[in-house]
Amino acid sequence: MPTVRQLLAEKSINAVYAVHPDQMVFEALEMMSSRRLGAVMVMENDRMIGIFSERDYARKGILEGRKAKSTPVTEVMTANVFVVTPDQGIEDCMKLMSEKHIRHLPVMENDRVIGLLSIGDIVTAMLHEQQNHIQNLEQYITGY
Amino acid sequence: MPTVRQLLAEKSINAVYAVHPDQMVFEALEMMSSRRLGAVMVMENDRMIGIFSERDYARKGILEGRKAKSTPVTEVMTANVFVVTPDQGIEDCMKLMSEKHIRHLPVMENDRVIGLLSIGDIVTAMLHEQQNHIQNLEQYITGY
Repeated sequence: MPTVRQLLAEKSINAVYAVHPDQMVFEALEMMSSRRLGAVMVMENDRMIGIFSERDYARKGILEGRKAKSTPVTEVMTANVFVVTPDQGIEDCMKLMSEKHIRHLPVMENDRVIGLLSIGDIVTAMLHEQQNHIQNLEQYITGY
Repeated sequence: MPTVRQLLAEKSINAVYAVHPDQMVFEALEMMSSRRLGAVMVMENDRMIGIFSERDYARKGILEGRKAKSTPVTEVMTANVFVVTPDQGIEDCMKLMSEKHIRHLPVMENDRVIGLLSIGDIVTAMLHEQQNHIQNLEQYITGY
């Protein structure tokens, strides 16, 4: 099973997209839409202070009377963020996502965010693992 | 690897939550929030005409000038829905979710929706599979 570090290396784009705490929900949504992301980090300089996801918006936006253009992202972000380190395994990520019902895990190394794994990344990695496993078994059986 | 049918049987709640095509985005968001869902079906009688997700709302709502209280869910739902049947395997679900970048798959049997699998359900199932596999190997090694 690959580590978080290997998973990050395999991602075609491993940029950390972030908004500043002063920015509005609307601007975060624009970034998420244009970059095709389900969540963005909320960062002040290099320090992560939260994560803002499509779910935060759906649950804490208009349902609680907030408007995207006049609500700072800090008001609806998730501040209590679960993270992983590059040396953890994919299974740790699966456990966290399953138990905490979350879809994004920032990857932290030496107090810095070096990447963001989504639940989609995990599923894609698991699929590749299985396909490799099947291929290895077939090679073993056929002798090639 | 379990089938879609087995996965549905293991879900603690396997209800199909749906809104009517006439309902507004706001009402769909209310249902999703109270039931802790990332998406709801859009159904007319027993016929599925689309699916509405947190992503649809984040991408096609306020960014395109639409307001949740005055926008019918049909205007922002995804009408071209990928589905699975109960006899398909979990790997088929993973492939669809990975390739199409989707997080929800309605399960169809005899033209009726009998359930909805989320990407979270898939990750939880994969985790259980792995834990069983490890347990079996340990039992094999220790002889218990």
